[in-house]
Amino acid sequence: MEVLNFTVNNLWMMISIFLVFIMHLGFACLESGMTRGKNTVNILFKNVIILAIGLLTYTILGFSLMYPGEAFAGDWFGFAGFGVPVADADVTPEYGDMTKWTDFLFQAMFAATAATIVSGAVAERIKLWPFFIFSILYVAFIYPIVGMWKWGGGWLHTLDTPFYDFAGSTLVHSVGGWAALVAIFLLGSRIGKYKDGKTFAIAGHNMPLATIGVFLLWFGWFGFNGGSVLSADPAGVSKVLVTTCLAAAAGTVSAFLVSYIMYKNFDLSMALNGILAGLVGITAGADQMGILDSIWIGLVAGAIVVFGIALLDKLKLDDPVGAIPVHLFCGIWGTLAVGIFGDLAGGKQIVSQLVGIATIGGICVVASFIIIGGLKALGGIRVPEEEELVGLDRSEHGMLAYPDFRMDDH
Amino acid sequence: MEVLNFTVNNLWMMISIFLVFIMHLGFACLESGMTRGKNTVNILFKNVIILAIGLLTYTILGFSLMYPGEAFAGDWFGFAGFGVPVADADVTPEYGDMTKWTDFLFQAMFAATAATIVSGAVAERIKLWPFFIFSILYVAFIYPIVGMWKWGGGWLHTLDTPFYDFAGSTLVHSVGGWAALVAIFLLGSRIGKYKDGKTFAIAGHNMPLATIGVFLLWFGWFGFNGGSVLSADPAGVSKVLVTTCLAAAAGTVSAFLVSYIMYKNFDLSMALNGILAGLVGITAGADQMGILDSIWIGLVAGAIVVFGIALLDKLKLDDPVGAIPVHLFCGIWGTLAVGIFGDLAGGKQIVSQLVGIATIGGICVVASFIIIGGLKALGGIRVPEEEELVGLDRSEHGMLAYPDFRMDDH
Amino acid sequence: MEVLNFTVNNLWMMISIFLVFIMHLGFACLESGMTRGKNTVNILFKNVIILAIGLLTYTILGFSLMYPGEAFAGDWFGFAGFGVPVADADVTPEYGDMTKWTDFLFQAMFAATAATIVSGAVAERIKLWPFFIFSILYVAFIYPIVGMWKWGGGWLHTLDTPFYDFAGSTLVHSVGGWAALVAIFLLGSRIGKYKDGKTFAIAGHNMPLATIGVFLLWFGWFGFNGGSVLSADPAGVSKVLVTTCLAAAAGTVSAFLVSYIMYKNFDLSMALNGILAGLVGITAGADQMGILDSIWIGLVAGAIVVFGIALLDKLKLDDPVGAIPVHLFCGIWGTLAVGIFGDLAGGKQIVSQLVGIATIGGICVVASFIIIGGLKALGGIRVPEEEELVGLDRSEHGMLAYPDFRMDDH
Repeated sequence: MEVLNFTVNNLWMMISIFLVFIMHLGFACLESGMTRGKNTVNILFKNVIILAIGLLTYTILGFSLMYPGEAFAGDWFGFAGFGVPVADADVTPEYGDMTKWTDFLFQAMFAATAATIVSGAVAERIKLWPFFIFSILYVAFIYPIVGMWKWGGGWLHTLDTPFYDFAGSTLVHSVGGWAALVAIFLLGSRIGKYKDGKTFAIAGHNMPLATIGVFLLWFGWFGFNGGSVLSADPAGVSKVLVTTCLAAAAGTVSAFLVSYIMYKNFDLSMALNGILAGLVGITAGADQMGILDSIWIGLVAGAIVVFGIALLDKLKLDDPVGAIPVHLFCGIWGTLAVGIFGDLAGGKQIVSQLVGIATIGGICVVASFIIIGGLKALGGIRVPEEEELVGLDRSEHGMLAYPDFRMDDH
Repeated sequence: MEVLNFTVNNLWMMISIFLVFIMHLGFACLESGMTRGKNTVNILFKNVIILAIGLLTYTILGFSLMYPGEAFAGDWFGFAGFGVPVADADVTPEYGDMTKWTDFLFQAMFAATAATIVSGAVAERIKLWPFFIFSILYVAFIYPIVGMWKWGGGWLHTLDTPFYDFAGSTLVHSVGGWAALVAIFLLGSRIGKYKDGKTFAIAGHNMPLATIGVFLLWFGWFGFNGGSVLSADPAGVSKVLVTTCLAAAAGTVSAFLVSYIMYKNFDLSMALNGILAGLVGITAGADQMGILDSIWIGLVAGAIVVFGIALLDKLKLDDPVGAIPVHLFCGIWGTLAVGIFGDLAGGKQIVSQLVGIATIGGICVVASFIIIGGLKALGGIRVPEEEELVGLDRSEHGMLAYPDFRMDDH
Repeated sequence: MEVLNFTVNNLWMMISIFLVFIMHLGFACLESGMTRGKNTVNILFKNVIILAIGLLTYTILGFSLMYPGEAFAGDWFGFAGFGVPVADADVTPEYGDMTKWTDFLFQAMFAATAATIVSGAVAERIKLWPFFIFSILYVAFIYPIVGMWKWGGGWLHTLDTPFYDFAGSTLVHSVGGWAALVAIFLLGSRIGKYKDGKTFAIAGHNMPLATIGVFLLWFGWFGFNGGSVLSADPAGVSKVLVTTCLAAAAGTVSAFLVSYIMYKNFDLSMALNGILAGLVGITAGADQMGILDSIWIGLVAGAIVVFGIALLDKLKLDDPVGAIPVHLFCGIWGTLAVGIFGDLAGGKQIVSQLVGIATIGGICVVASFIIIGGLKALGGIRVPEEEELVGLDRSEHGMLAYPDFRMDDH
C-alpha cells in the first residue's frame, strides 16, 4: 500500500519533469519568435546549450547546494557534496514521496529555467561566451543558494511567519528577472531601439513561433505549479491546476483589454505576455487561492505587464521579449499577492513576503553586477556594432535560420 | 485503498486535462497554417482569446448549466448556480473518481474547443468583436445546455434506447460544426474564392505549422477520448486509445488514396484532414468498437472529408480549413456509426442517434442564426473589402506575423 | 491491490505511448527543418503516411511476428496470427503489467519510428511510391523479426551472456540506420552536394522547426526509454530518466565543443544532433548506467556525430539530416557501451553486443539491398533530375509549403 502510494506520487512527479522540460522549448520558441530573424539561430543555440549546461551544473553542484539536508547546512548556506549519489534508501518510500532520482531531475529542470529567463532579455546583442559563463555561475551558485533559503529549509523558511513562495514567483522567476534587469542595464539597448528620445518598436519575426512558445509554457506550467505539490494529492494538485489556468486566462483578457484601451489595437504580443503574466503571478500562491482570488491575481498581472513594458521603454531599458515585466514585475506581484489574497492573507505575511523579495532581490542584483560587470570589464559582453547590424546568426554562427527565404534586414 | 484508487483516477484525468489543453495549440497552428500569412496574427489572437474567455465563461456559468446535478434540473435545462463552489466533500472519493476541481477543468477545456472549431471556418474575413460575442454566448449557453441533454443526464440520456455519444462527435464537434456552417453562410466567401462559376483554391501559407497542428490534435485526442472514460480503468482507456489511433491512421490513408485517385496528386492537406476525420469519426463510439470497426470508421471518414470539401465548394460555401467536413460531416458520421458498428449496433440505436443528431443540429442552427444573424444586423460581422484585401493583421492588429520576410500578398 | 498496481503500471505505459507518438512529430519537424523549403511538403507527407501505414501494418502483422509468444515460435521466427485479437484475460493483471491494448500500441508506436529514420536520410530525392512500399515491407517483416530475436525471447536473448539492448539502440535505431545507409548508397547524392571533389553544404531551411523537432524527440524519449521499463517501478523509471537526460546534455555539449574546435563556429545543427546522439547512445543501457557513465556515453556520442558527418561527406554519402551518424553510428556506440560502462560491463558482454550488432546489421543490410535494390531495378527510386531541381513539392505534390513567401530556389 505504502509502496503503491509511493509509485503514484513518483509517477506524477516524473510527469511534472516532462512538463517542466518542455518549458525550455517554450522559451526557445517564444524568444526566437519575438526577435528578429537574423538572430534566430543565436537564440535557439543559447537555449539548447543553457539547458544542457544547466542540467550538468546542477548535477555536479547545484542540487547539493540547494538541498543540503543535514550535511554541513546552516541557515544561509549548506552543501551535501559533489554529484548526486543515490543510495538504495533514496529510492524507497522512506526517502519521501518520490525517488531521489525524480526529486533531483525535477529540481534540475527548474534550475535551468532561471538562466533561460535572462536569455530573452539580452537577446540580439550579447556575446555567447560571457553569456554561457554567467549562466554556469548563476545556476551553479546563486540560484541554489537563494533557493535553499526557503525550499532547502533556510532562514526564510524558519521566520516566525515564514516567507511563502509555493512554486517560485520569487525563487525562480524573480531570480531570473533581476539578473535580466542588471544584464540589460549593463548591455545597453539594441541599435535603433531608442533614438532622439523616441522608442522604435522592433517587431518579432515569427508570431506563430511565439504563440507556440507561450502555449507550451502554459502546458509546462501544469507541471511547474502542479508538480510543486510534490505529491499526487488529488485535492492539492487539481486545485493548483484550476488556479493556474484561471490566472492565465484572466491575465490574457486583462492584457488584451488594457492594451486595447491604451493603444486601440488587438495586440497579440500583449495577449501572449498576459498569459505568462498570469502564470507567473499565480505561481507563489497557487495552492492558497480560491477561484476569485486567482482571477484577480491574473487580472492585475495582465495590467502590470502592459504598463511594465511601457515603463521599461520610458527608462530606455531594452527587453526584446518582455522578460522583465513578466518574470520580475509579475514575480514580485505574485509574491506580494500571497499576503493579500487567499488562505495566508494578512499583514505579517505581507511583511515576510517583502523581506523575501528584498533580500533575494538584493543578493541577485549584487551577484549579477559582480558577474556580468566583471565579464564586461574583462573582455566585453556585447558584440561589435557591425556584427549586431548584420545579425548574430551570420557573425557568430556562420549560418542562417531561413536561408531559402528572402528577408529584409532591419 | 479507496483513496489511492481515487488518486490514480484523478491523476489520469489531470493528464487528460493537459492533453485537451494542447488541442487549443493544435487548432491555432492548423488554422493559421492553412490560411494566408496576412491573416495569421488574427487567427492566433482569436485562438488565444477564445481559450481564455471560454475558460472564464465556463467557470462562471457553463459548468453549472451542463452538470446541474439535483439543483434545479429538468430534462431539458438545469442550473446549479454561478461559479464553481467546491466543498470538502467534492475533493474526496465520495464525489466520484476525481475531485470536482479536476472534473470542472476537464470539462472547461472541452467547452472551449467548440468555439475554436468555428474560428477556422470563419477565418480571414470575420470581425473580432462579433466573433468574441458569439463565442461567449455559444460557450456560455448553447454548448452546455445541449451537452446537458446527454452528459448532464437530460432527456437524450433517458430515452428508452439512450442516444450514445462517448466523447462528443455530436456534443462537441457537430455543435461547433453547425455554428461554423451557419456562420460561413451568413458571412459569405472570401474575395476571390469563387469567380465566374469557378473555384480558386487559396493555399495555406505554412504547411509545417498545419502539420504540427494536426499532430498536436492527435496527441490531445488521447486525452479527449481517453479521458472521456472518466477513470483510469486499464481495459477501458487502453482500448479507446487503440481505436482512436487506428481510426486516425485509416482516415489519413483513405483521404490520401481517395484524393490521389480523384486529383492525381499527393495532397498533404487532405492527408492531414484525413487524420482529423478519423479522429472525429471514432469519437462517438471509441469505447464500443473493435479493431476492424475502427479501421472501417476511419476509412469512411477519410473519404467523407475529401468529398465534403468538394461539396462545399460546389455550394460556394467557403471553409478555409475544412472545419465543416471534418467536425460536422464526420461528427454526424461518427454518431451514426455507433448504430452501425460495434457493441451497440442495431436499428433502435440508429434511430436514437438520428434523434440526437437532428435535435441538437436543429437547436444549434437556430441559435447560431439568431446570434450571428443578430450581430450581422446590428453592426455587421465582416471586415470591409479593403481590409480583407490588405489582410486582417495589418487592418485589425497593426502588426504582421512575419515582418522580416518578403511575402506576396494574394 | 494487485488490480490497482496494474492500473498504475498501465497508466504509465499509456503515457509512454503518448510520448513515443509525439516523436513522430519530432522527426517530421527535424527532417523538414533540416532540408530545403522546396521539399518540405514531401517530407511532411512521408512522415504522416509512414506513421499511419506503420500503425496499420503493425496491427495486421508486425505485433504477431515480434511477440509470437508460445504460438508457432522458434528462436529465429514466430507468428501469432493476423490482427491483434484481445481476450478478456489480456486486460487483467494476469496478462502482465499492462493490458494487451496498451502493450500493442506502445510497440506499434515504436515500430513506426524505424521507417521514419530512413525518411530523413533519403530526403529531397526519393520517389514516394517506392519509399512507401519499402516502409511497409520493412515495418511488416524486418523490424519485427529482428526485434523478436531479443525482445520476443529469440536467440539473442537466450545466449549464455544475453545480448542487451534496453530500449533499442540496435533494435530500433540501427535497424533504421542500416536501411538508411543502404538507401542513400543506392540513391546517390543530391544534385550539387558533391562537385569537383568538394562538398557543398546544403543548409536546412528552417532552424526553429528543426529545434522544435529535437526538443520533441527528447520529450518523447522520456517515454521511449522510460516506457521500456515496462512498468511504473519508481526506482527503475526515474533512474532511466536521469541517465537519458544527462546523456542528452553531455551529447550536445560535446558536439558543440568538438565542432567549435574543428570548425571555429557555434553550429546549431551540430548541437541539435549532439542531443540526439546522446539519446541514441544511452538507449541500449539506460537502466544499467550511473551518472558518470551516462555523461561519458553522451560525450563520446556527441563527438561521434561530428566525426560521422565528416566521414559520410568524405565517402560522398549524402545524408541530409545526419540520420546515419545519429541513429546508426551512435546506435552501435550505445550498444557497445553496455559492455564498457555500467552494471553489465565486461568482456563477455562486449562479445555478445558485437554478435548482436553484426547479425542484425547483416540482415538489415541484406534485406534493404534486396528491397530497395529491387525497387530500383523495377521502376526506379529516384525522381528525375528536373523534378529534383524544381523541388518535390511542386513536381510530386503540386503544392508549396510556403506559397506566400518569396524564396530562393537552390
